[in-house]
Amino acid sequence: MSLLTRLLLLILVLVLAPAVHADALRGTGNLGVVIERATQSVLIIDTSRRETLGRVEGMGDMSHASVVFSPDQRYAYVFGRDGGLTKVDLLTASIVRRVVQAGNSIGGAISDDGELIAVSNYEPGGVRVFDAVTLDQVADIPAIGAGGKESKTVGLVDLPGRRFAWALYDAGEIWVADLTRPASPSVVKLRDVGKLPYDGNVTPDGRHYLAGLFGEDGVVHVDTWRQPLVAERILDGYGRGEQALPVYKMPHLEGWASVGDKLLLPAVGHHEVIAVDLRSFREVGRVATHGQPVFAVARPDGRQVWVNFAHPLNDTVEVIDTESLKVVHTLTPGPAVLHMEFTPRGNDVWVSVRDADRVDVYDATTFEKKAEIPARKPSGIFFTARATRIGQ
Amino acid sequence: MSLLTRLLLLILVLVLAPAVHADALRGTGNLGVVIERATQSVLIIDTSRRETLGRVEGMGDMSHASVVFSPDQRYAYVFGRDGGLTKVDLLTASIVRRVVQAGNSIGGAISDDGELIAVSNYEPGGVRVFDAVTLDQVADIPAIGAGGKESKTVGLVDLPGRRFAWALYDAGEIWVADLTRPASPSVVKLRDVGKLPYDGNVTPDGRHYLAGLFGEDGVVHVDTWRQPLVAERILDGYGRGEQALPVYKMPHLEGWASVGDKLLLPAVGHHEVIAVDLRSFREVGRVATHGQPVFAVARPDGRQVWVNFAHPLNDTVEVIDTESLKVVHTLTPGPAVLHMEFTPRGNDVWVSVRDADRVDVYDATTFEKKAEIPARKPSGIFFTARATRIGQ
Repeated sequence: MSLLTRLLLLILVLVLAPAVHADALRGTGNLGVVIERATQSVLIIDTSRRETLGRVEGMGDMSHASVVFSPDQRYAYVFGRDGGLTKVDLLTASIVRRVVQAGNSIGGAISDDGELIAVSNYEPGGVRVFDAVTLDQVADIPAIGAGGKESKTVGLVDLPGRRFAWALYDAGEIWVADLTRPASPSVVKLRDVGKLPYDGNVTPDGRHYLAGLFGEDGVVHVDTWRQPLVAERILDGYGRGEQALPVYKMPHLEGWASVGDKLLLPAVGHHEVIAVDLRSFREVGRVATHGQPVFAVARPDGRQVWVNFAHPLNDTVEVIDTESLKVVHTLTPGPAVLHMEFTPRGNDVWVSVRDADRVDVYDATTFEKKAEIPARKPSGIFFTARATRIGQ
Repeated sequence: MSLLTRLLLLILVLVLAPAVHADALRGTGNLGVVIERATQSVLIIDTSRRETLGRVEGMGDMSHASVVFSPDQRYAYVFGRDGGLTKVDLLTASIVRRVVQAGNSIGGAISDDGELIAVSNYEPGGVRVFDAVTLDQVADIPAIGAGGKESKTVGLVDLPGRRFAWALYDAGEIWVADLTRPASPSVVKLRDVGKLPYDGNVTPDGRHYLAGLFGEDGVVHVDTWRQPLVAERILDGYGRGEQALPVYKMPHLEGWASVGDKLLLPAVGHHEVIAVDLRSFREVGRVATHGQPVFAVARPDGRQVWVNFAHPLNDTVEVIDTESLKVVHTLTPGPAVLHMEFTPRGNDVWVSVRDADRVDVYDATTFEKKAEIPARKPSGIFFTARATRIGQ
């Protein structure tokens, strides 16, 4: 081959390259991430075409991994169990930066302006805050309770006005922090809120923070619009008179369902979902379920809630009508249904079926299965539309 | 220059080209469109950097123009007053396709699955439906009321399950259509709902459709979860005993505020916003305002509502606290404040100040002005996060 021919071939390759690249131009509103725990990887998926776009490996320990998204919906921040915080570029399917910021951590949040990433840590306990662009640490808030001991932190959420809330597991406290100036966070500490808050979440309007108590039958509630902040117990002794079952899997408050003026909460150690009135914060009903509920996820219109269950009853999903509080449909997607995520306007729902190495996509109206997507031991599913939500 | 040198230069150019292109790769979750009515153009803006990315011209008559977005948040569908439906690529700032589908139209909607675009027409009256990819027409639903006459259509919204709802202005009817099979739409027609429904909207959960009645003091309500569908009058005679003022500008129900368990509705011909309880659909309070309200837009956390006013009091914005129903802050952005749009998690709000040729960006917590963006006679502002909402 002559030099000229070689150069012409090279030119051809270079001319074709940008063409391929132009095809890669795409929106990010319909992307998502599927956690593949066993292989320390994540899949990047397209919820419109219902297909996989890429896989990112080297993510570290992905047990209980969770994800938040940048406001432009281009970047996923993945919180691993090993203290890893990984920023993934969904458009190039690559890791932008990864920091191991603690020894053991459990979830995180992004500030309402998208500028701060906060991580909830077990070891050492506390909350660390990072610049969303660089992942440089900008604040460190150790979780020293009233008793002077360090505590694990759980239930970390964002609140409007560049604030975050979380619970101190060991100390039994709830803290609300204003990170307007990360160098000097302003933290309000609510003491003695109850025994062992194990998870927390905030209503979709960012107003009501609730934490489930592992050490007792009950939930603690903070109305963040009130000044001064007060923690109030609700649903005291919700398992009254019943024999609590061994808890195989803690239900996630992350997976509660806020529907109209009600919340549906998975009961700990019971085959029940509890309905709570959002005005009175009193129980207004219960739904007997197939097993111990893990996630109760509302269809975005709030008319139905999909519930999955703890081992060994975790091949099943029940669909609850939120007006009648009755189970109106049952699906058995397959072995080990771990998570469910709705498309933002509620037409489809994606279900991870871990032991079938598959994510199934259902029509949320007809319950018809629309697609099966191969995945390696999939667990959590997170769509970029979360970037538009308070308490994402 | 030798051939070899020329070829090497060419290679250099080609190598650089994709590098420039890679920089253009970006997410679409923080994009938006600003209508520039006078120049028949739209600005494409970045809500994170608070800056303009491009301008698209040749959009036709942009009076009362409104916008919906594709699920991937890459494409804007712009509904013009001249019957024009224009699909704009936000990433390339260019028109993908433009059809003039009627002689006079007023807004549109996108189906929950993102596949269908519906347009509400005055001339000829009715709703036409288009394929979201190609803009080819897939359905035409003329608006012939019970009296046999053709009617203008208004208040078109999407509902879950590939449905749409709209009102017939002249005929006084509300229609709910299932477009699962566009070739044979299934339409439920509610007759005699009230005189001259002039606009309609649906609650954020897609459940309650309400239309304002221009021909009488009142609002008509359809609970779309009930079977059979029934239209019920609410707020009858809400201006009772008061002298109605000349109406300079019809308030938009598009701009109502759904906050927690209340709706805040602009009253027609009065200097008032009316609060309605979402359980009983009864009035629970009123707020006296600076002028005749046009848009009442809720901050995404629902704690405050921003209201702008009709000419000649349209230089002012009032901020209402939704618990106390009191005005807690007043801004005077400048002459002819036409529209307001919050970033999805409520940290910023963008305000178009038409006669100052400017869009202002305010911090929604502190009311501090963060940026001013030049725009030619800006009116409507629409962010891509709308793609994630029912009734977007």
